[in-house]
Amino acid sequence: MTKMQDASNVRLFALNSNPELAQAVSKHLGVELSESTVSHFADGEIAITINESVRGCEVYVIQSVSEPVNDNLMELLIMVDALRRASAKKVNVVMPYYGYARQDRKARSREPITAKLVANLLEIDQIDRLIAVDLHAPQVQGFFDIPVDHLQAAPTMAKYFLDQQFTDDVVVVSPDHAGMTLARHFAELLGDETGVAVVDKRTEATRENPDLQMPEMIIGDVADKVAIIVDDIVDTGNRLASSAQLVKKMGAKVVYAVATHPVLSEHAVNKIEASPIEKLVVTDTIVIPAEKQSAKLVQLSMAPVIAEAIALIHNHKSIHKLFQL
Amino acid sequence: MTKMQDASNVRLFALNSNPELAQAVSKHLGVELSESTVSHFADGEIAITINESVRGCEVYVIQSVSEPVNDNLMELLIMVDALRRASAKKVNVVMPYYGYARQDRKARSREPITAKLVANLLEIDQIDRLIAVDLHAPQVQGFFDIPVDHLQAAPTMAKYFLDQQFTDDVVVVSPDHAGMTLARHFAELLGDETGVAVVDKRTEATRENPDLQMPEMIIGDVADKVAIIVDDIVDTGNRLASSAQLVKKMGAKVVYAVATHPVLSEHAVNKIEASPIEKLVVTDTIVIPAEKQSAKLVQLSMAPVIAEAIALIHNHKSIHKLFQL
Amino acid sequence: MTKMQDASNVRLFALNSNPELAQAVSKHLGVELSESTVSHFADGEIAITINESVRGCEVYVIQSVSEPVNDNLMELLIMVDALRRASAKKVNVVMPYYGYARQDRKARSREPITAKLVANLLEIDQIDRLIAVDLHAPQVQGFFDIPVDHLQAAPTMAKYFLDQQFTDDVVVVSPDHAGMTLARHFAELLGDETGVAVVDKRTEATRENPDLQMPEMIIGDVADKVAIIVDDIVDTGNRLASSAQLVKKMGAKVVYAVATHPVLSEHAVNKIEASPIEKLVVTDTIVIPAEKQSAKLVQLSMAPVIAEAIALIHNHKSIHKLFQL
Amino acid sequence: MTKMQDASNVRLFALNSNPELAQAVSKHLGVELSESTVSHFADGEIAITINESVRGCEVYVIQSVSEPVNDNLMELLIMVDALRRASAKKVNVVMPYYGYARQDRKARSREPITAKLVANLLEIDQIDRLIAVDLHAPQVQGFFDIPVDHLQAAPTMAKYFLDQQFTDDVVVVSPDHAGMTLARHFAELLGDETGVAVVDKRTEATRENPDLQMPEMIIGDVADKVAIIVDDIVDTGNRLASSAQLVKKMGAKVVYAVATHPVLSEHAVNKIEASPIEKLVVTDTIVIPAEKQSAKLVQLSMAPVIAEAIALIHNHKSIHKLFQL
Amino acid sequence: MTKMQDASNVRLFALNSNPELAQAVSKHLGVELSESTVSHFADGEIAITINESVRGCEVYVIQSVSEPVNDNLMELLIMVDALRRASAKKVNVVMPYYGYARQDRKARSREPITAKLVANLLEIDQIDRLIAVDLHAPQVQGFFDIPVDHLQAAPTMAKYFLDQQFTDDVVVVSPDHAGMTLARHFAELLGDETGVAVVDKRTEATRENPDLQMPEMIIGDVADKVAIIVDDIVDTGNRLASSAQLVKKMGAKVVYAVATHPVLSEHAVNKIEASPIEKLVVTDTIVIPAEKQSAKLVQLSMAPVIAEAIALIHNHKSIHKLFQL
Amino acid sequence: MTKMQDASNVRLFALNSNPELAQAVSKHLGVELSESTVSHFADGEIAITINESVRGCEVYVIQSVSEPVNDNLMELLIMVDALRRASAKKVNVVMPYYGYARQDRKARSREPITAKLVANLLEIDQIDRLIAVDLHAPQVQGFFDIPVDHLQAAPTMAKYFLDQQFTDDVVVVSPDHAGMTLARHFAELLGDETGVAVVDKRTEATRENPDLQMPEMIIGDVADKVAIIVDDIVDTGNRLASSAQLVKKMGAKVVYAVATHPVLSEHAVNKIEASPIEKLVVTDTIVIPAEKQSAKLVQLSMAPVIAEAIALIHNHKSIHKLFQL
Repeated sequence: MTKMQDASNVRLFALNSNPELAQAVSKHLGVELSESTVSHFADGEIAITINESVRGCEVYVIQSVSEPVNDNLMELLIMVDALRRASAKKVNVVMPYYGYARQDRKARSREPITAKLVANLLEIDQIDRLIAVDLHAPQVQGFFDIPVDHLQAAPTMAKYFLDQQFTDDVVVVSPDHAGMTLARHFAELLGDETGVAVVDKRTEATRENPDLQMPEMIIGDVADKVAIIVDDIVDTGNRLASSAQLVKKMGAKVVYAVATHPVLSEHAVNKIEASPIEKLVVTDTIVIPAEKQSAKLVQLSMAPVIAEAIALIHNHKSIHKLFQL
Repeated sequence: MTKMQDASNVRLFALNSNPELAQAVSKHLGVELSESTVSHFADGEIAITINESVRGCEVYVIQSVSEPVNDNLMELLIMVDALRRASAKKVNVVMPYYGYARQDRKARSREPITAKLVANLLEIDQIDRLIAVDLHAPQVQGFFDIPVDHLQAAPTMAKYFLDQQFTDDVVVVSPDHAGMTLARHFAELLGDETGVAVVDKRTEATRENPDLQMPEMIIGDVADKVAIIVDDIVDTGNRLASSAQLVKKMGAKVVYAVATHPVLSEHAVNKIEASPIEKLVVTDTIVIPAEKQSAKLVQLSMAPVIAEAIALIHNHKSIHKLFQL
Repeated sequence: MTKMQDASNVRLFALNSNPELAQAVSKHLGVELSESTVSHFADGEIAITINESVRGCEVYVIQSVSEPVNDNLMELLIMVDALRRASAKKVNVVMPYYGYARQDRKARSREPITAKLVANLLEIDQIDRLIAVDLHAPQVQGFFDIPVDHLQAAPTMAKYFLDQQFTDDVVVVSPDHAGMTLARHFAELLGDETGVAVVDKRTEATRENPDLQMPEMIIGDVADKVAIIVDDIVDTGNRLASSAQLVKKMGAKVVYAVATHPVLSEHAVNKIEASPIEKLVVTDTIVIPAEKQSAKLVQLSMAPVIAEAIALIHNHKSIHKLFQL
Repeated sequence: MTKMQDASNVRLFALNSNPELAQAVSKHLGVELSESTVSHFADGEIAITINESVRGCEVYVIQSVSEPVNDNLMELLIMVDALRRASAKKVNVVMPYYGYARQDRKARSREPITAKLVANLLEIDQIDRLIAVDLHAPQVQGFFDIPVDHLQAAPTMAKYFLDQQFTDDVVVVSPDHAGMTLARHFAELLGDETGVAVVDKRTEATRENPDLQMPEMIIGDVADKVAIIVDDIVDTGNRLASSAQLVKKMGAKVVYAVATHPVLSEHAVNKIEASPIEKLVVTDTIVIPAEKQSAKLVQLSMAPVIAEAIALIHNHKSIHKLFQL
Repeated sequence: MTKMQDASNVRLFALNSNPELAQAVSKHLGVELSESTVSHFADGEIAITINESVRGCEVYVIQSVSEPVNDNLMELLIMVDALRRASAKKVNVVMPYYGYARQDRKARSREPITAKLVANLLEIDQIDRLIAVDLHAPQVQGFFDIPVDHLQAAPTMAKYFLDQQFTDDVVVVSPDHAGMTLARHFAELLGDETGVAVVDKRTEATRENPDLQMPEMIIGDVADKVAIIVDDIVDTGNRLASSAQLVKKMGAKVVYAVATHPVLSEHAVNKIEASPIEKLVVTDTIVIPAEKQSAKLVQLSMAPVIAEAIALIHNHKSIHKLFQL
Repeated sequence: MTKMQDASNVRLFALNSNPELAQAVSKHLGVELSESTVSHFADGEIAITINESVRGCEVYVIQSVSEPVNDNLMELLIMVDALRRASAKKVNVVMPYYGYARQDRKARSREPITAKLVANLLEIDQIDRLIAVDLHAPQVQGFFDIPVDHLQAAPTMAKYFLDQQFTDDVVVVSPDHAGMTLARHFAELLGDETGVAVVDKRTEATRENPDLQMPEMIIGDVADKVAIIVDDIVDTGNRLASSAQLVKKMGAKVVYAVATHPVLSEHAVNKIEASPIEKLVVTDTIVIPAEKQSAKLVQLSMAPVIAEAIALIHNHKSIHKLFQL
């Protein structure tokens, strides 16, 4: 772990979305979490008071824009407003999960581009830097004109699978066409001999219509292999579950799944449990509440990577080494 | 009711906070509500699709930033983003209740000014005009650089009391020091002979500490009079209830209360019912759900005023006449 | 007095509105005033040259936007432009009196909000921070998105009265409805037993119509008490003088008046002298020229508070302690 | 073809990148091209004079940011500056080919996001609307806050192949992982039975290293089928040529290729001619100079689609129907 | 005179700098001046109320930024703020004299560029267009990103001299090096045979040091000619007077002087009267008060040119013809 | 040479326009050039990667916007984008030659003001400072709101001529009316006795019409003198060559020419060689390629001045001394 230089004017704040991750980052960094009071009134209004001076400080605020998405986003925006007015020198936002990232383009007429709206809201609020993990599309970096440090969960995830020392051939499967680049990247971290495959759906099952027809076929060879289905987000679980079923039907020996951000909405965990998925490996960018825990879930922590990134950024060093195994 | 000229390119949209009021405004205006689909996913993300072309249209979006405040605010911001990208000519926001309006200054060190943050978010989202009702402080108009049309509930409210034809003397009571200007304004609408009084609290009971010590005294004469306590927002109901008790103790014959925006959080209605308040007169800027209805509540509609304002604004006429009885 | 750390790159500039106050602040801070040449040509144009390098410096410019308001404002804007182009690192504006602060809302149709306009002019000119004293409405802080440090004269004023050791009961009187919050705040600084009262005018006497009908009554008890009328600004003196007369008529033993900013336009001093006011206590945020001096005027200096605020801000310390007695 | 309403205040300008396409659009629209003089001096500076009044006009400027990319971009920016200062009412930019669109994310540390830079340059230049064709990533729409109308070449392209009435099975092949979504979309336009496949390269051949190792395998079934390789841009031709070779080796009966934007840099045409590609179908978003013509090239015109889009946009009608066959 | 189309939504406002010119423009245009109330309080604060609705109107505000410069500038900025908030559709500023235009560059270290500051203040205030007359440097147009219509007094001035039908040779003299381009332009309006000359001063007499050494020599031939000294501004009169003396000494038969903007500060008129200048021809962009009138002063009105410009701009026609005789 | 303090976080980058000058500046400063890779693809797109970390660094980028103007400008804009996103602390642009500077005003209707457009592009790209040499008009400084350090070549040039120790009288000649101020300034550097003259052209020969009629006469005395024609830019060479011919015809003993920026487009060098110009003295703000070298060309380096300026700026010292001999 890199040591921060001149850490005395650094302040680390956690908001309400993910206090465990913030605590872990704080521990890795060796910087105490600063105190702020965040109240939610009966009508939903948020009030924030910062309980120590931040004048002239370099502040890092850790907040995932996860469920409840809008409350967590407003908490962040209000906190940044308070920090600015309290004369913080720099406000760096660490956003392990960037909500609304999937709304990154006009897929149909008269849709918003909410991922850009979120970027605009953060920029008008005058944040100085965004540190994010596995943005749904890398182009979201370009929605900002401030520096964005884009961390990856793949090295952490890949290490988990390399530690399993599979003796069978491994194939990385993308659950949809758009995920093929990510799948190929993940396969390369697992070694040169790792293949890729893709689930070929005719009609895209969407969040709006999660029950649309089953995927029909796999392109690529999965028979007798260890299949690892790779996605960036697991939301309703439909896509991973149905993909796993198909991969299994096509002869895979065993099926794993990987998703950086465990949104796990509705009955996602039940679906995963009912599926042929052996283990679903996720990270702690989003808190998994007790009622959603499952023996099939493996949660790896991004805290070491985030803490190291903060230390390197603070020391003005390149974060390039964090992208490698 | 003023007739709109060239209404063919006007579109009226209602979001989820207050469909009844939007429906009433639509009826008064004689303009159908346009259709949009607003979905809330399990993780709280909002998705909006506008179901008819708005290219080149003058659009009015009606949304109160009431409970759930953050969801309603994000709904509005996302809707405006979609309308802009769909080439609407002008986007006018009708916000009957402006949430976060009470956080309009730094009362203590290191607090945000969230009412200004909301203004910034709306301006970066490129709204063309705001139509609001009874902003908590009139200075909030200055948080915007776009035109703000600031409507008042007082004439509607005053008319209700004038219709009662009280034979006793009337006194308008402000429940705190800051409300004296509003109380005097309301008294003048009720007639020259109407007096004012104010509850003098040593320590301000706040939203954060709603149970702080009781108000201690009334400054001004309320004995044997019809007392009307005037506030802009009724939130927890503590302030109105305790003020009413005090006013009654000081000899008022009967106590009414007035508040434009019925936030009515937590047990507000119970407190009002248990208080000596005869009637609490509010408007429909915020929906009152069935479980909060009470025989003591009188809800007057702002729809005629809002509709008339939209028609006048559309016709490029002054809205001055709406401020009078 | 707090000592500034690394004061070598601090520069303090005084413009023409209030050189005495600037000199006093300089002395308290132990930082010499830097030299600049400000010329006013016959046609009113202002030319400024800064006579020493400010490259990389933290600059504090002291200027009240007092009479002549527009010249002083333009002096400030031009100075900031020159400082920016001369590569100053930070430009902090100390504005003891914020002119135009009373125009902070649209009181009638088609009025400007000049207090916001002034804020916009300062922000487009790229100032980094505003340090102000007793803004007419605290919401003016929200007109800015940069940090605003809002100093108070009340502790300095209250100390003056506590030093008088009055043996009679004291009542703080607000000369209009809007000033009740300030009056209550001032009363609390004077001790728990201090009461409040308010002058209840039916028709507001305004700057435009200073001779409108006399105030009619006092709400609250002033008989046999030491009355202190509290206002933030004394402009024409009409309001204080007529309020004093009324307070006296209602039986007050002696009447004092307090106003942070001595605008004292026209015949204000004569009116004060002819009134029952014993002493009018003001500060030096605005210079009082020789011809306006009077035995009734007591002028307390804000220099110690401003100097301490600059030192704390420079050292990145909280200024909270300045708000207490 | 839709007729434009009130076409009298519409002006259509062509810059130097693609006068043929502009001419064709003009003819379809029935609106003459307006005259402007664009001079390039010996040192590369561009001077523009507009030869007729555009005061109060709705202006459409047609310019591809194709080779020479920087000159064409500056021509556009200077033209827009001139139009703004000449009091045009609206400036709509029709950019059939958006240069720099491939630099839409930070693929490696310390890279620019030039596609966003281009968006920023256009927005600071105050264009009102962008009409683009097949942006490299749809997220580029979100780089803008103005309305973007994103036209597609796919329906025009698909119609060409449907007209061929192939009797063999058809498979759409993506030349890299990132193109799978586009390939599936194209396959659906060709009919339900159309399959997809993808070239699986271990190390990505890039523009910087165009000669990196050959693609190794195809995932998906191409044997005995008509294979159509679909890409958005054909630049050096390496990727299409090597993909075609591989597809052929894997047993495809015949190989077609499709690419909206014919950049065709360096020896691209030679490579296409030497490859097993039967026909390379492109559009006229970029001019193909005489020396690059080839019997294998089929160039379909986007002029009807662009002209129809302009007419619909001008009439404030939805352009949705342009996305269908 | 061009007739305005649809003049019903045009509003013309005059502020305090130059009501006569505004009245004349109103008469030429056939559009009544709208009413607004501009009050100046004792402390210099300006209050403006607009006395009729401007919703949806195209507004033209006429104001010279002449003495008192800062008051007139603030009047303008406040008026524009009021018009914007009152929902005017477009705010066009007609500024016959642009004060501070001479401070258009950093002539020495640590000077402001006040002409740009003024432009920034107007742009943040959201004016839509500037109509100016004879800007001190044409580059000031580039200080704005909005359209600037730059009118010229030269044709009006030249016509005056052509009407004199001089029989002697005419030479146009620039009183300093920077004015040579203007002098040559003026000479060409007077006919091909008109020559030019320039006063060659070693040390530039400046506004700050108006009494610096006399100009030493004339470059160019003035002997036995009618000399017309051409400047854009006559301020203290020193430059014109000393130049006239020199020109006369070098043998000129008779000396005229021309200056668009009659600032005429201090004893300018006395100096002109004491000089060999026959007539000083100026325009009415700045009011000349009674005490500054002189038999040597000829004041030509720009009202016809300004009125014609407004009409042409309103009708979306080119103003090019106004630049010719 | 001033020594830089804390040079360890300074980075100096050269782009492609003028590597020799950048190398010379680097040597004078004692700071190595940092490495970046700038690739130009076949279609003209530029790709940049920075090869070392610049996090937290003060960066100076040296780039002239000289031929090819648009490519060099885009290189600069893209580099700055990359530096920003790579978390550079400050980005200072050293632009020895500011292309497009001659398009600094609307000379005719419907022209752009491209020099302002370039300023806007640089400001939206968020540069922190511009260091330029001899801007065509000093008003271009006002196109920026960031600090601009405007260096002069005149002292370097003047020293060259003073070293010649001419025994004859010297006259400085401006080749057009607009250059008279520059000529007088240059003459003063050469000594009090130096005179000035100007070429008086009736119709201005422009870049667009370089072959317009010959200049007709000289105003001022050049006979039997050493004439030095002074211009800021030598482009086609027409103006200098024809002026020299005229000056010679009017009896000058010998003719030198001076121009800071050697654009030297087309056959400029041939024209200079065929002219009576003895020596044309230029600087190295623009590279002169081998094929344009000539015995008549004297190229003085601005590297010492630029390096000294960077050192002074970095040390927060005034650069005033660089303006003197």
